[in-house]
Amino acid sequence: MSKSRMEAFSDGVLAIIITIMVLELAVPHGDNLSALRPLIPVFLSYILSFVFLSIYWNNHHHLFQAVEQINGRVLWANLHLLFWLSLIPFVTGWMGENNFAALPVALYGIVLLFAAIAYFILTRSLLSIHESDSVLATALGRDFKGKISMVIYILAIPLAFVSAWIAGGLYVAVAIMWLVPDQRIERTLS
Amino acid sequence: MSKSRMEAFSDGVLAIIITIMVLELAVPHGDNLSALRPLIPVFLSYILSFVFLSIYWNNHHHLFQAVEQINGRVLWANLHLLFWLSLIPFVTGWMGENNFAALPVALYGIVLLFAAIAYFILTRSLLSIHESDSVLATALGRDFKGKISMVIYILAIPLAFVSAWIAGGLYVAVAIMWLVPDQRIERTLS
Amino acid sequence: MSKSRMEAFSDGVLAIIITIMVLELAVPHGDNLSALRPLIPVFLSYILSFVFLSIYWNNHHHLFQAVEQINGRVLWANLHLLFWLSLIPFVTGWMGENNFAALPVALYGIVLLFAAIAYFILTRSLLSIHESDSVLATALGRDFKGKISMVIYILAIPLAFVSAWIAGGLYVAVAIMWLVPDQRIERTLS
Amino acid sequence: MSKSRMEAFSDGVLAIIITIMVLELAVPHGDNLSALRPLIPVFLSYILSFVFLSIYWNNHHHLFQAVEQINGRVLWANLHLLFWLSLIPFVTGWMGENNFAALPVALYGIVLLFAAIAYFILTRSLLSIHESDSVLATALGRDFKGKISMVIYILAIPLAFVSAWIAGGLYVAVAIMWLVPDQRIERTLS
Repeated sequence: MSKSRMEAFSDGVLAIIITIMVLELAVPHGDNLSALRPLIPVFLSYILSFVFLSIYWNNHHHLFQAVEQINGRVLWANLHLLFWLSLIPFVTGWMGENNFAALPVALYGIVLLFAAIAYFILTRSLLSIHESDSVLATALGRDFKGKISMVIYILAIPLAFVSAWIAGGLYVAVAIMWLVPDQRIERTLS
Repeated sequence: MSKSRMEAFSDGVLAIIITIMVLELAVPHGDNLSALRPLIPVFLSYILSFVFLSIYWNNHHHLFQAVEQINGRVLWANLHLLFWLSLIPFVTGWMGENNFAALPVALYGIVLLFAAIAYFILTRSLLSIHESDSVLATALGRDFKGKISMVIYILAIPLAFVSAWIAGGLYVAVAIMWLVPDQRIERTLS
Repeated sequence: MSKSRMEAFSDGVLAIIITIMVLELAVPHGDNLSALRPLIPVFLSYILSFVFLSIYWNNHHHLFQAVEQINGRVLWANLHLLFWLSLIPFVTGWMGENNFAALPVALYGIVLLFAAIAYFILTRSLLSIHESDSVLATALGRDFKGKISMVIYILAIPLAFVSAWIAGGLYVAVAIMWLVPDQRIERTLS
Repeated sequence: MSKSRMEAFSDGVLAIIITIMVLELAVPHGDNLSALRPLIPVFLSYILSFVFLSIYWNNHHHLFQAVEQINGRVLWANLHLLFWLSLIPFVTGWMGENNFAALPVALYGIVLLFAAIAYFILTRSLLSIHESDSVLATALGRDFKGKISMVIYILAIPLAFVSAWIAGGLYVAVAIMWLVPDQRIERTLS
């Protein structure tokens, strides 16, 4: 089974998710700075989600460069990941339009957590059809970043009700941690 | 005639259909749980349609792996399938926003039925240009799942006016039946 | 210069145009048949435009199978075609929501006419870099269908102010004429 | 690392950005010419942005034909470019709906400026992994057009507060300068 059509479909869905988020930035009616002011939290949410979706595309791209084969289970694990990512425009809009209120910030973290779990399941389903000395298995290694991300989300979600800024800061910390491109796979491949 | 551009176009349309559905999940104005409550039926409809569109993508992917050649009739049969699938965001939104009222649930089934018929026509137009001992013909076999799906939709549509939950349950049953990946083609190819 | 990325970009734009049109089918508030009734003209416009865009994708696909090389001028001729096609969702929505009033029907024809002219310019820019005995030149031949389509649009646009149904009937006639796949290129290639 | 998936993802995002802009052309309620009149500035903005996005796609296409290899830094430089381009539908809508008022026209220029800077960073990150006598380095040369574009945007942004028409005229001048396809790379490749 060829991985190319699955990559193309994932790229299509990710490209659309990342782009329709900008539709949440509704064009304001006035033509002055005060008309733009209510959009600031929406815009900040947009930047954060753009970065998260870019990280997912980047990691997906690196991951599948090391993949030698796929099967039906991998296709479904990938669709499951795309499902959670497809909810990001909704939670981004809700968080931005409510100026980072507690519940929307917590729900944003819940969607990030389930996307991280879905990505983890995808890597497990790939590892189960690759040798333990394959490029993929070597490259993924202990998957430290993936696991610590899930731990941070689990901490951040209840903390959103203490302070949305703590939760938001933790999300930003995860993003910064991932912005360093996945050296493991890149190093193993080169 | 090459099948690759037709696959790419179908992937593009399916990726967009599956993603713009999330735009029906309009961002609510409040920032509390009661603001989310009216979205529950919309969200449930979204999950169901996401699963159905994933099944179509998956089956389309498996089907075209076995395809050796296409012609102009296949191109149009494929566009006809995409037409019915393109109506899914509309019926999903109508069903969700009306909390699974009888007519929207019936119309949802009608669109599923016509999509199933369009898929059936697509497989017939492909079979007519492949040998009866081709991988495609062997893999499709009697197409039991395809036929039983159409029968269930025909039963479910009038039953929606008796109870929308019976009709909805039948749609879910069809989805579960298909969630098992198409072993026929996968087995034949391996 | 490779034609594959240009084909991929055109497929992407066409897939999005054909799909976002369905967003004009705004989900109605009621859950009964009378809530659907105002959508009938919008739905009829949608079907017509879906068919026209399918014809363009189909012809584009057939055309580029015969293309051996492209240049910068072809890239711009193609973007010019995509510009006119990108206006189809707007004129489709305007025509449907105004129940086929004269001006919207005429504007629909104007966009179809400019799209046809843009397609004609694209074929000319391709012919200028292919030999007169190339597959492309043989396949395009006198391009009877392309020329007669433009003539019909020029007749239909003013007739929309006499009767929108005459103009609409002429658009449907053009669509039916094209629904027969482009035998010329298919025959020449086989 | 292969450049093809990065090209495909960029094509997807650009295709969506260029197409969702048309959603800003909201279908008017009346069916006469006066209903279309308020859309004229929105339509003019749409044409300008369609041309700018076409130029970016075209240049990106030419650029990557000369690229021999990419790395993680290039992936992020490319995503950074897509971020700024993704804001074009928003500023296009704001400029059009406010009939070319000073602040929206200036903000349009700011987004164009940051997109130009992002493209410049992308070319620098590519040059750093190509030999100084590579096709890419020869083709980019001194990048006169890229640099003069940035200078014109920096001049146009404050001038928007003197006269929006001067700023708009400068944007159009940049577009015309680029409409001539990138002869440098095309000449070097042939």
